Amino acid sequence: MVPTDILTLIEEYIAAWNEPDSHIRIELLETVWDDEGIYADPVSHAMNRAGLDVIIEGFLEDNPGAKIILNEKIDHHHNYVRFSWTLHLNDGREIPGMDYGEISPDAKLIKIVGFF
Amino acid sequence: MVPTDILTLIEEYIAAWNEPDSHIRIELLETVWDDEGIYADPVSHAMNRAGLDVIIEGFLEDNPGAKIILNEKIDHHHNYVRFSWTLHLNDGREIPGMDYGEISPDAKLIKIVGFF
Repeated sequence: MVPTDILTLIEEYIAAWNEPDSHIRIELLETVWDDEGIYADPVSHAMNRAGLDVIIEGFLEDNPGAKIILNEKIDHHHNYVRFSWTLHLNDGREIPGMDYGEISPDAKLIKIVGFF
Repeated sequence: MVPTDILTLIEEYIAAWNEPDSHIRIELLETVWDDEGIYADPVSHAMNRAGLDVIIEGFLEDNPGAKIILNEKIDHHHNYVRFSWTLHLNDGREIPGMDYGEISPDAKLIKIVGFF
């Protein structure tokens, strides 16, 4: 079973992707994302927290009303995690995806690599 | 579509897991695995090629006749890969799994994190 703190970490990370208010979003990212955390997916790449915030802001501007729903079946061992999610676009389309992640000793995400 | 060289890299990596001859196996690992490559799954962790070889040797000793079959639907972006496989045990059991991987600039695996 995945520890509660890791589930909370991933839930708050997904919440950041769903948060259009930039002040609330950066607070969430400060809680869950290492300053130097690396983010990559097929269309984006960021080398730190500020870069990830720019990617999320662009995603939410391009996809108003989009919502990412976490599949709470999370795999976890060592400092590694894997979880799935579904992106619900406001035109009804649903896009499934999966993230691989690494967690720092102080319990923040230091890497997410997404596949969709 | 995944580049042919990446598919070959992953196929040779899986071949190493299926190779009980230690001389052939280490040749395969020298081709596909960085000296300092990190390997982790729910029950194993290695910090370099020699450590991975020890893990594979133990796996094959514990599971004679086991064979890992790669699902050739590989996801790939930047220097990251994701692929699935099925472990066929000689008692008929089949165990599905998925690996996340990172590829070095000289086209070797520098990290595999497996989930099953």
